[in-house]
Amino acid sequence: MATLKARNILITGANRGLGLELVRQLVEIPYPNRQIFACCRDPDGPKSKVLQELAKKHPSVIKMIRLDVTDSGSIKEAAERVSSLLGKGGLNLLVNNSGVAANGTIQSSSADDMLSNFNTNVVGSFRVIKEFLPCLRISAKASGEQGMSCNKAAVINMSSIAASMTHAPQIYAFLPAVSYKVSKAGLNMLTICAAYEFKPDEILFTALHPGWARTDMGGQNATLDVKESIEGVIRVMSGLTEEQHGAYVDYTGKTLPW
Amino acid sequence: MATLKARNILITGANRGLGLELVRQLVEIPYPNRQIFACCRDPDGPKSKVLQELAKKHPSVIKMIRLDVTDSGSIKEAAERVSSLLGKGGLNLLVNNSGVAANGTIQSSSADDMLSNFNTNVVGSFRVIKEFLPCLRISAKASGEQGMSCNKAAVINMSSIAASMTHAPQIYAFLPAVSYKVSKAGLNMLTICAAYEFKPDEILFTALHPGWARTDMGGQNATLDVKESIEGVIRVMSGLTEEQHGAYVDYTGKTLPW
Repeated sequence: MATLKARNILITGANRGLGLELVRQLVEIPYPNRQIFACCRDPDGPKSKVLQELAKKHPSVIKMIRLDVTDSGSIKEAAERVSSLLGKGGLNLLVNNSGVAANGTIQSSSADDMLSNFNTNVVGSFRVIKEFLPCLRISAKASGEQGMSCNKAAVINMSSIAASMTHAPQIYAFLPAVSYKVSKAGLNMLTICAAYEFKPDEILFTALHPGWARTDMGGQNATLDVKESIEGVIRVMSGLTEEQHGAYVDYTGKTLPW
Repeated sequence: MATLKARNILITGANRGLGLELVRQLVEIPYPNRQIFACCRDPDGPKSKVLQELAKKHPSVIKMIRLDVTDSGSIKEAAERVSSLLGKGGLNLLVNNSGVAANGTIQSSSADDMLSNFNTNVVGSFRVIKEFLPCLRISAKASGEQGMSCNKAAVINMSSIAASMTHAPQIYAFLPAVSYKVSKAGLNMLTICAAYEFKPDEILFTALHPGWARTDMGGQNATLDVKESIEGVIRVMSGLTEEQHGAYVDYTGKTLPW
């Protein structure tokens, strides 16, 4: 099995749920001089307590960074801080994990639900990609490796099976979540567009469904525990190549239908 | 060939481009007591001049209605006005045609481009569907017809080939339009969700790609003239059944891949 050799990794929404578990598991994978930029809206607040404790245990690896994906200014500040910590190195792996989910049908959802889910889940990822692009380009150029990989320069957009137009009707029966689904379908399209646009830069873009995991967002009826989901996510990220550039895969590595 | 027998039809963005041509062609199809609610942001303004002249020629058929899809209050007022004109009748066909298109790559687009395209193209259709739902339900219930059709009760969401995840990479090469593509992919997902949610009401929902037509939006390099595009759109709408409920078809009737 491939091992994740990305040196510098940035994760948004890293204080809770899947983002937190991703930091937790990545810090256990030994790699020289690895830096994990664990981003969240309020790194000093009570909702970041577990991440704070984890960062205290691994101060040379985990760097907590204030970043709100809905606020361009905050992303700019985060990019400046991360750039200073990277020195001349680039960012190898950016995980757009931050997300919100309004559950509701068309009748029970509001225009604000639609707009706020889109703003966080799609425009948030869009803003972060744009701001960290120079850091990703540095690592892509510096790498001696052929092709594309998460070790070289990659963006993983955390998608969902709920973004699949093919699977949407079956899912609607038990999870309407129209605002969420519309936003995640948009995120898949953003991934495809980014894959095309940044192919010459050799930056890999993949939409990844982490499985339905028991988090605050996923609820307690979900089929996977967080540990299992993120083990799969790391395994899949480790093995991604240009074959999955612009693709939509799940935590087992399976390609999903749009 | 099936003929469009929808009595009461509402079209958003009816003062220009494909919306205007749709009004122009529909008014020529004879049908007793037909009403076409031609909606636009500024029915009295200079951009609605051609529609004003058309409405003057067909005063019993074309009713110009002020409607801005980004403004809930304006949609509510439009629905009140349309309801009063419908009397006890319902709305048979709602065409969510109003749309905007920012062209630009990820690098050249702004977060505002993303948000404004989404707000008009997706949330606009969402707001209109919600507000006109009671009118659509009336016609679905009143109809003695079995199954679903545009003659009974239907919503056509004007989509685009650019919304196809499958086709997006080829299209990106000559038309990046990331904000537009992301929004239209979201509109396709909204169509699927609506199809599921309103199946018990027997209201048909279909996403329709009108072809690439020479309008202000499509530009002069487009492959179709407006007349040909709308002839196809009307032909396809006339023949839609529950087989195309929640589907994505083009102006020739072909089903497109998501």
